[in-house]
This record gives sequence, structure tokens and C-alpha cells, in this order.
Amino acid sequence: MQGFDFLLLAPIGSILALTFAAYLAVKILKSDPGNETMQEIAQAVRIGAKAYLKRQYLGVSIFFAVVFCILLFLALKNYLVIFVPFAFLTGGLFSGLSGFIGMTIATQSSNRTAAAAMKSLNSGLRVAFSSGAVMGLTVVGLGLLDLSIWYYFLNWYYGVNPQSIPAGIDKIGAITSTMLCFGMGASSQALFARVGGGIFTKAADVGADLVGKVEAGIPEDDPRNPAVIADNVGDNVGDVAGMGADLYESYVGSIVATSALGVAAGLGIQGVTVPMVMAAVGVVASIIGTFFVKSKENASQKVLLAALRKGVFTSSFIVAIIAYFLIRFTLGADHIGIYWSVISGLIAGVLIGVVTEYYTSSGFKPTRFIADQSLTGPATVIIGGMAVGMMSTALPVIIVSIAIMASFIFAGGLQHFETGLYGIAISAVGMLSTLGITLATDAYGPVADNAGGNAEMSHLPPEVRKRTDALDSLGNTTAATGKGFAIGSAALTALALIAAFKDEVVRFGSTMQLDIMKPAVLVGLFLGGMLPFLFCSMTMRAVGRAASKIVVEVRRQFKEIKGLMEGKAKPDYARCVGIATKAAQHEMVLPSLLAITAPIIVGIILGVEAVGGLLAGSLVTGFVLAVMMANAGGAWDNAKKYIEEGHHGGKGSFAHKAGVVGDTVGDPFKDTSGPSLNILIKLMSMVSIVFASFIIRNTLSK
Amino acid sequence: MQGFDFLLLAPIGSILALTFAAYLAVKILKSDPGNETMQEIAQAVRIGAKAYLKRQYLGVSIFFAVVFCILLFLALKNYLVIFVPFAFLTGGLFSGLSGFIGMTIATQSSNRTAAAAMKSLNSGLRVAFSSGAVMGLTVVGLGLLDLSIWYYFLNWYYGVNPQSIPAGIDKIGAITSTMLCFGMGASSQALFARVGGGIFTKAADVGADLVGKVEAGIPEDDPRNPAVIADNVGDNVGDVAGMGADLYESYVGSIVATSALGVAAGLGIQGVTVPMVMAAVGVVASIIGTFFVKSKENASQKVLLAALRKGVFTSSFIVAIIAYFLIRFTLGADHIGIYWSVISGLIAGVLIGVVTEYYTSSGFKPTRFIADQSLTGPATVIIGGMAVGMMSTALPVIIVSIAIMASFIFAGGLQHFETGLYGIAISAVGMLSTLGITLATDAYGPVADNAGGNAEMSHLPPEVRKRTDALDSLGNTTAATGKGFAIGSAALTALALIAAFKDEVVRFGSTMQLDIMKPAVLVGLFLGGMLPFLFCSMTMRAVGRAASKIVVEVRRQFKEIKGLMEGKAKPDYARCVGIATKAAQHEMVLPSLLAITAPIIVGIILGVEAVGGLLAGSLVTGFVLAVMMANAGGAWDNAKKYIEEGHHGGKGSFAHKAGVVGDTVGDPFKDTSGPSLNILIKLMSMVSIVFASFIIRNTLSK
Repeated sequence: MQGFDFLLLAPIGSILALTFAAYLAVKILKSDPGNETMQEIAQAVRIGAKAYLKRQYLGVSIFFAVVFCILLFLALKNYLVIFVPFAFLTGGLFSGLSGFIGMTIATQSSNRTAAAAMKSLNSGLRVAFSSGAVMGLTVVGLGLLDLSIWYYFLNWYYGVNPQSIPAGIDKIGAITSTMLCFGMGASSQALFARVGGGIFTKAADVGADLVGKVEAGIPEDDPRNPAVIADNVGDNVGDVAGMGADLYESYVGSIVATSALGVAAGLGIQGVTVPMVMAAVGVVASIIGTFFVKSKENASQKVLLAALRKGVFTSSFIVAIIAYFLIRFTLGADHIGIYWSVISGLIAGVLIGVVTEYYTSSGFKPTRFIADQSLTGPATVIIGGMAVGMMSTALPVIIVSIAIMASFIFAGGLQHFETGLYGIAISAVGMLSTLGITLATDAYGPVADNAGGNAEMSHLPPEVRKRTDALDSLGNTTAATGKGFAIGSAALTALALIAAFKDEVVRFGSTMQLDIMKPAVLVGLFLGGMLPFLFCSMTMRAVGRAASKIVVEVRRQFKEIKGLMEGKAKPDYARCVGIATKAAQHEMVLPSLLAITAPIIVGIILGVEAVGGLLAGSLVTGFVLAVMMANAGGAWDNAKKYIEEGHHGGKGSFAHKAGVVGDTVGDPFKDTSGPSLNILIKLMSMVSIVFASFIIRNTLSK
Repeated sequence: MQGFDFLLLAPIGSILALTFAAYLAVKILKSDPGNETMQEIAQAVRIGAKAYLKRQYLGVSIFFAVVFCILLFLALKNYLVIFVPFAFLTGGLFSGLSGFIGMTIATQSSNRTAAAAMKSLNSGLRVAFSSGAVMGLTVVGLGLLDLSIWYYFLNWYYGVNPQSIPAGIDKIGAITSTMLCFGMGASSQALFARVGGGIFTKAADVGADLVGKVEAGIPEDDPRNPAVIADNVGDNVGDVAGMGADLYESYVGSIVATSALGVAAGLGIQGVTVPMVMAAVGVVASIIGTFFVKSKENASQKVLLAALRKGVFTSSFIVAIIAYFLIRFTLGADHIGIYWSVISGLIAGVLIGVVTEYYTSSGFKPTRFIADQSLTGPATVIIGGMAVGMMSTALPVIIVSIAIMASFIFAGGLQHFETGLYGIAISAVGMLSTLGITLATDAYGPVADNAGGNAEMSHLPPEVRKRTDALDSLGNTTAATGKGFAIGSAALTALALIAAFKDEVVRFGSTMQLDIMKPAVLVGLFLGGMLPFLFCSMTMRAVGRAASKIVVEVRRQFKEIKGLMEGKAKPDYARCVGIATKAAQHEMVLPSLLAITAPIIVGIILGVEAVGGLLAGSLVTGFVLAVMMANAGGAWDNAKKYIEEGHHGGKGSFAHKAGVVGDTVGDPFKDTSGPSLNILIKLMSMVSIVFASFIIRNTLSK
């Protein structure tokens, strides 16, 4: 086996994933699109979503053009390798493409899921899940493709032009440091997608609910609500396109961060390629796993969840077995400990998923506790939800802590420090290796949600809505699990990126000793610890402002369009979509700039050690805050659903009204601010790495 | 001046403070106690408060007895100096005494403030403020007394028995390390007082509001509400006794932490005594400052605030001048930079106060923004308040960061690292030097609040209530400012304590390098970053549970006591007080134990470096979270008051109901969970220091 180039598995895995995704996509498109109304509604959502993305990509491309020019300037000034600006571009492009493809298929699937749900629950599940799988496999397929292309290209180029290898490193180092930088493109794109999409979706959702449900007293997804299409568009641009870009970034980030540490870990070229090969194995395992997801009619929540779990667990199991032989044959028996690092990550991911489910599913105590609190009104619902969210941070932090220690020690960190860091980094790759299928279980949720909206607006029989509701409710839990994965892996990846930043600083002839007792490091920690709060504050206020614009518009339409409430006239859906789009585009700029400029500003004023502190501080607070917000939001949402099932007086009761308040507060928590944090902490690390030499040469301190 | 023993100023300052406090107390007691009803109501509150404190001290004394035995055992096993267990006891005793005296006089002052407010606003202000001043001066007086006694005793004892000086340090080192440990007693007492009192006060407040205001529709402080006395008792045990113990701990903690670093900083005995002397100067300045606080009739909020500010600024100014000469003559011209460290702290404290005021006073945008959000219901009020609270963390973090850097550099940290750390520590002493008066402006708030309750229940003319309301509303802002001081100084003190912990670890022959890249340190950071969230979750849930017990009891009384609503029968106030007392005592145990055991457990499993990370992590997150919770809570409270003044529809409107929800959510934020965090982070550091040798000898790692 020694002669075999395992790395070939990466492009092969990529092509397999993309081919299978294309096959599923075609299958979905061939399935019954439902009656004319259903198709019309789906089309309205599709048009709105595409219009949003078009606008979004336009705005983002301006940003990319500016940053590209800055990077090109820095590269020409010899601060950076010449390929960095281009790597930055492709990272952004592929990340955006992942979101776009996932969303395109999701908007084609909502009416088809509704149509399939007319037949049976299993049919509905199959269509929705297939749509999720297209997304999952596209993300991993494009990720591996981008990585493979760059690796092979740079390997060839530096082989032919050894003189262009930057000073201070060898060929492998030059390759990994460039690849690391394309993570910055992916992260930037992801941040815009998450923040912009998150603001859009929650502004539309909150706006639609506030006027529709609360003021006008019409049900959710009622076609008379002018913001209802915007709400459905939001699910797609935020929860689908945003999530796709986000997890593309996590996936690619974990791989490049591990590769970057491979050389320092003394593992040679194999250390660099193993994470990519491992990812390729995960792709195959994910494809196999998708075949295990099916359900019977009248399946309970638990049975449905078990169906999804079966797919995920099968994939994990396959990865766990193949990874052993992979590492045995590439890194050799001496480094078999690294296998256990991978397994640590894999297990930590599964455990975080279980913990998340416990805290956010109405089958367990915490969410029911919040539902109970609704009996004494909205204030106690909020206090209860905050308490549950805060409590829910303990176990994920402990799990990640154990994973860090375990993967460090397994990899031999006590003997060779750098190999230990490599172990930590690769545990994130292990955690995300089955992303193809975990993302599928996650991305099917918004499709089911939209299918429900479609069924409601098309006046389909109530049992259809009941089926889509069952799928949707499950989606809330899997969405929280997906966020758990994203943030758990982010903690490990960000740590690897800080290590890579340190390597980069040392390479440029500076030193970096991140001793907490040093005032600069400590001040960095403080500033970094505060940034996630500031970032969340900005995004939450943005949602508030955008939502109130929607509120004003919906009120205006209710008032000015005659016969709207009687169902005789149609509302102007497009206007609400347009308003949400404009607001989201406008509001996403400031928080994103904060993330990108903060490390550079801190570095220039206080030096690279303060930047190290900044990254560590934002990592710690960002992680805890993200878990808190995602879980509190998920629990509030499901507590409301639990009440709607008939507990504590059911729909319309005093308790329900209190539950709706909790759900509304949770919306920006779980879908805007919280899930952006994992990107924030990695993007800040990437920016630090890319601008390391610039910071070192221009710092005011020392 | 070289021959003069400046340290004599410490006992002199202490006696001055206590004498002046006694003078003010007598003056208050001699003033008009109001009519019989007023006295009766005040007595009911007084009895309830004393009953609570009695019970609290009983519970806490069991805890102290247990810990005393453990410490004695460790001392006999040579892990600790023999005086540590006794220092621990006196720290707790004096901290408790501060709270007790402050509360005793506060409960005597509420009816007298109401009586004085019948004459004029200025008379009311004078009584309430005098009561606050008694508290402020008692805290600083007792603090200096305890410090002086221990210093002089140990100095004498070790002078006579040099053989009992522990190995590895000299006489001064032995003195400071023992004194440091009595901080642990003060912090333990403070944590119990804040948590227990905080749970009591908010359980009673929330419980009274939920049934009284929301369900029964009777106004606040209505005598028909069975929980109304408990609510008033809560103000005293939480906001007065709790705050007294809290700030005693901050005050003493900042001084002993600085003294502990004095030797390592190379400043000799002067470095040890200067912080005490500086505190003594602050006492005199505070006494002078109290004479500047007076107001005219019909003074607006701004004028009233200016009146209080005048006192604080005068004191700060006096300290700023005298400190120069003090440091010039004790530490010498070479170390005059340390003067600027003190000034950095003083300015940082004032600036944090200004920022806090901006974010929590209804005179400014953020609070009005929250009030505006009430127009779209409770959900947007909550989202808005969270966003404001999170946003409000940015400036305090930046201010403290600048203070850290400035005081480090001014003190000469770039040349001599340890002197720089000393500079950071003494900047906290500078910040708290005027505590005598800042605490007075803070502690007068609950007295005014209770005076309002007294006026309401005694059916005094509406203009009296209006005057007490004016004083009370101002109290909300000064309370938030006081919390800003407590948390700002805590950040600086905790940093000094971590440094002292490191010194202690080194003294016991172990090494400690808090490099963030080390997995143990990083895992410590993560765990530490999570602890404040877990702690807040526990305390908030405790409030929720205790409040629902009150709700049940109030509902029962409304139902079972005939003629209660018509005012013909009296409710059973004592029962509500009893329930809240029992619940608070029960609920305060777990979160407090968490704080005390966490560093020991982490240390035993992962070693001292992980403990260092734990302390830094909890410092960063605790600081940010505390500011967020205190400011969000203050802003919600004042947004509600702003609406009640007639904005957005005024009392009883839709907006007002939404505002009440925000206020209720803010209650445990600002009065239970948030203000306990500054104690938590220091107590954990103190525990780490005291148990350092135990951890080193028993750790499982290495």
C-alpha cells in the first residue's frame, strides 16, 4: 500500500459526491411538483430567494473585489504569497456556490415535499431528505474539489518553479499556507451569508408574526399575510443558503487548518494530505448512510429522529473503521494515536448532538420546564429560556475540553507538542467527516418548513400539514444539532488556526508567547471576550430594525389594499421581499467589517501577542455564547410547539401567547446571531494569519 | 517625612469613618420617624429583614465552621500558615457585619425618609443619603480596621517569632500571604449575601408583581398584597446587606491583592502598606465629599444626579491630589509612575460610571430605544434590551483594557514586569478609594425605594410618593454605576490575584506558564469561560423556583383570606417572608459551592496551569456577562419607568405591559445573577491561592 497515492481519493470522493448529488437532484426534479397553486407559490418563493441571492452576491462581490485588491497589493509588496488573493476568491466563490445550489434545490423541493406528503409521511421525508442530501453532498463535494485543485496546482507549480517558494519555508509549507488563506474567502462569504440571510429570515419571520398572528389574528403561513412569501424566502436564504456557506467554511477550514499543522507536527507530506483523504472517506460513508433513512407512516417524533440517526450513525461507524486503516497505512503504526484523536472528535460530535437534543427537544425536561413557565407569563418564559440556554453550555464545553485533552494526548502531544496540536486539529476533521449526511439531516428542516407553508397556502387537506409539521418539528432539533456540530468543530479548528497564526508569526521573524499574565495578551483576551457580545448586539438590533420596517409595510398593506383580509385581493408579496432584502444587505456590512478589521486594528496598536489573546478570548466567549443562543432559541421554539400540541391550554391560550414571545425572542438568537459566531471566530483567525506579516511590520507597540 | 509611619493613617482613617458613621446614624435615629402607621410598616420590614439575616448568618456560619475545620486541618498538615483559618473567619465576620449594620440603619431610615419627604425633596434626600453614607463609611471603616489589626498583629508576631515564618518567604511575604487569605472569608460571605439576598429580593419582587400587578391588578406596594413586605424586606437584604458585603469584599480584596504583589514588585514594606494608606486618604476624602450632597425642591433628575456627582467628584479630586504626595514620600520619586497608575484606575472608575449611566438612564438613547420597542410588544422589548446590554459591554471592556495597559506601563512594567502588575493592582485601589461616598450614593437607592413603599402603604399624600419616586428612579442609575465600579475593580483585582496565585505556586516549588497554546491552559480557559454562564443559570432558575412558591402563596391568601381585596382583612405578610427566606437559603448553596469547588477540582484533575486558565476564563466572561446583565436590567427597569411617566401610552397601556415584562426579566439579571459575578471571579482566585499547595501536592496530572 505504500506506493498508492491516497490523495487521489480526494478528487474521486469529490466527484462521487457531486455526481450523487446531481442524481438526487434530477430525481427530485422528476417527482410530482403538485398542483398549479402549489407550483405557483413555490415559484414565488424561488423568485424571491434568487432575487435575494443575486443582490447578496452583488454586494459581496464588491467586498471581495476590494479585499482582492488589498491582498494583491500586499502580495506585490511581498507581504503575501502571490496566490493568496486568488485562493481568497475561489474560497468565496465555492462557498457561495454551495449555498446557491443547496438553495436552488431546496426551493424546488418544498412543493414536491408537500405533494409527496399527500401520499405518505415516508414519501414526504424522502423528498425533503433528498433535498437536504443534495445540499450536504454539494458542500463536501465542492469543498474537496476546491482543495484538490489547489493542492495539485500548487504542488505542480512549486515543483516547476522552486524559486518562487517564499523564504523560510519549504514546498509543503508554501502549499499549506496558501491553502489556509483560501479559508478566509470561504469564511468571509459564509459570514455574509449567515448574517445577511439571518437578518432577512428573522426580520421577515418576526415581522410577519407580529402583525399577522398578534395584531390581525390570522394563522401562520396565511396567504393573506403580505410577509408570508418573504418569511418562506427567508427560510431558504438564511437556513439553507446561509447554513450551506457556513458549513462549507467549517468543513474546508478544519481540513486546511489541520494540513497547515502537518509539517510542524513532523508528519511530512502525509500529515498534510491525511485530512483530505479522511474527508473523502467521510463522503463515501455519507452516501452509504443516506440509504438508511426511511420511515413508516404515522411514525412518532422519536421514530422519525431514529430514522435520521440511523443514517448518521451508520456513516460514523464506517468512517471509524476505515480511518484506522487509512492512518495505519499513511502515517504509520507509530502515529496510530492520531486515529484516536479522530475518534475523539467523532464521539465528541455525536455527544454534542445528544446534549443539544436533550436541551432543545420537547421530549425532555428543559424544554418542558420552559413550557411550564409560560403559565406565569412571558417574563418567566424568557428567564426560564435564558437559564436553560446558559445551563446547556456546560456539557458541550466539558465535552470539547475532554476532546481537546484526549486528542492532544492520543496524538502524542506530551512527547511532541506540535503533534498534539495536530491531533486537536484533526479531531475537528473527524467531527465533520460525516458532514455529507449530518448536513442532510439538518438542511431538510427548512424544506419541510416550506412544504408546510406551501400546504397551508394551497389549502391542502389538514393531514398533509400534519405530516409536514411532524417533519418540521424534527427539523428544529436537527437544526440545533447541526449548529452544535458547527460550533463544536469551530472550537477545535479555531484553536488549530491560532496555532497556525503562531507558526506564521514565527516564520516572519517575530516571537509570540501567549502568556496570560502579559498585559497585552490579557487585554487581547478581554477585547476578544467582548467582541462576540458586540457582534450579537449588532446583529440583533439589525433584526429589530429590519423587522420593524416589515411591520410598517404589512400594516400599510392591510390598511390600503381593499379586500385583502376577506381574501378577495392579493397582497404585494414582492415588496416585503424587497424591503427585507435591502435591509439585510445594508445591515450585514457593519458586523462583518467588525470581524475583519478587529484583529488588524488590535494588532497594529498592541502587537501580535494581543491578537493571539483576542483570538483566544473570542474563541472562548464565542463558543459559549453560540451554544447558549442556539439552544435557548431551539428550546423556546419547541416549547411553543409543545404548547401548541395542546399542553397548558394549547393554541390561543395565555400560556401560548407567552410561548410565542419566547419563540420570537429566540428567533434572532438561534438563526441570526448565534450561528454566525462560529464563523466569526474562525474568520478573525484567518484574517490574523493572512495579515500576520503586515501586522508585524506595522505594529506601533514594541 | 521619611520618619513618619504613614501606615498609622489606616487605623486613624478607620476610626474616623466609623465615628462619622455613628454620628450620622444617631442623627438619623433622632429625626422624625413619621406617624404610627409608617413606623409600624417600617418595623414589619425591619423584623422580616432581621429574621432573614439571622437565618442567613446561621446557615453561613455552618459553612464557615466546615471550611474553618478544613483550613485548620490543612494548616496542621503544613499546607497553610496557621493564621489562615482565623483570617478566613474574621474576613467573613467583618463582611457580614458591614452588611448587617448597613441594613439595620437602612431599615430605620425608610420611614424617616418618607417623613422627611413630607417636608421637602432635599430633606428626603438628606436622610436617605445619610443612611447610604452610614453604610459606605461602615464598609470602608471596618475594612481598614480588619486590615490594620491583622497587619499590626502579624508584624508584631513574626517580629517576636521569626522561626514561625513559613519557608521560602520573608516576614513581609508571610504577612501579605495571610492577609490575602482573609479575602477569601470576605468573598465567601459576600457571595452568600449577594446570592441569597439576590434570590430573596427577586423572588419576592417577581412574585409580588406577577400576582399583584398582573393578575389582581392592584398597584405596586399596595398593602393588600401579601408579598409586599417581603418585597420591601428584599430590597434591604439584597440591595443593602448584599451590596455591603459585596463591596466590603471588593474593597478589602483590592487592597490585599495589591499588598501581596508589593514585595515581588521590589517596593519593600512601603509597597505593602501604600494601598492601605491610600484607602485611608480616600476615607477622609469621602467624608468631606458627603457635605457637598444637597438638593433644592423640585429638582429634576439631572439636578439630583448632579448633586450626588458633586460629592463623588469632590472626593475623587481630593484623593487625586493627596495620592501624589503620598506616593512621592513613601515610594519615592523613582516610583511616581505608580501615582499615574492610581489615577488611571480612578479615571477608569469615573468613566465606567458615565458609560453605565448612558446605557441605563432614560435620559439617553439606549433606554428610550427599549421603551420604543415596547410598542411592538414584549418580544421586541426583550430583544432590544439584550442588544443594549450586549452593546454596553464594549466601552467598559475598552476602558478597563486601557486602564490595564496604562497602569502597567506607568508603573514601569516594561522595565520590571512585577512592578507593572503592582501598578495594575493599585489602579483598582484607586478606583475604589472613594468607595465611602460612591457606596453612599448607591446604598441610598433602596432606602428611597422603601420610603416610597412606606408612603404608599401609609396612604401619604401623592406629592410625597412623587418625591420618593424621584429619589428612587435616580437610585436605579446609581445602583448600576455602583455595580460598574464593583465589576470594573474586580477585573483589575482578579488579575492581581491571578498574579498572586502564580507567586504562590512558584513559592511551593511548582512552575506555572500560562501559555494559551497549552491544552491544559486552554481547557481551563474554556471551563472558566463557561462557569459564569452556569452560575447565572443556577441563580436565575433559583429565582424562578422561589418566585413561583411566592406566587402560589399569594394566590392562596387572595383566595382564602376573606375581605382582603376590600381592605377589611390583613394579609399574612410574615408567611411570604418566611417562604422567601427558606427558598433563598436553600437555593444559595449549590451555586456557591460551584464557585468554591471548581478551582480545586480542576486543579486536581488538570494541574495548576489549568487553574490559571480557569481563573482567566472566568474573569473575562464573568466581567463581560456581569456588565451585560447589570446594564440590560437597569435599562429595562428605567425603560418601564419612562413609559410610566406617560410615554407611549403610559401606565396600563399595551406598551407598559411589554415594559413590565422587560423589567421582570431584568430583575434577576441586575440584582441576583449579574452582581454576584464579580464576587465569583475573585472568590475563585482566592480559593486557588489558599489551596495552591494542596492542589500542587495532590494533582493527578504531571
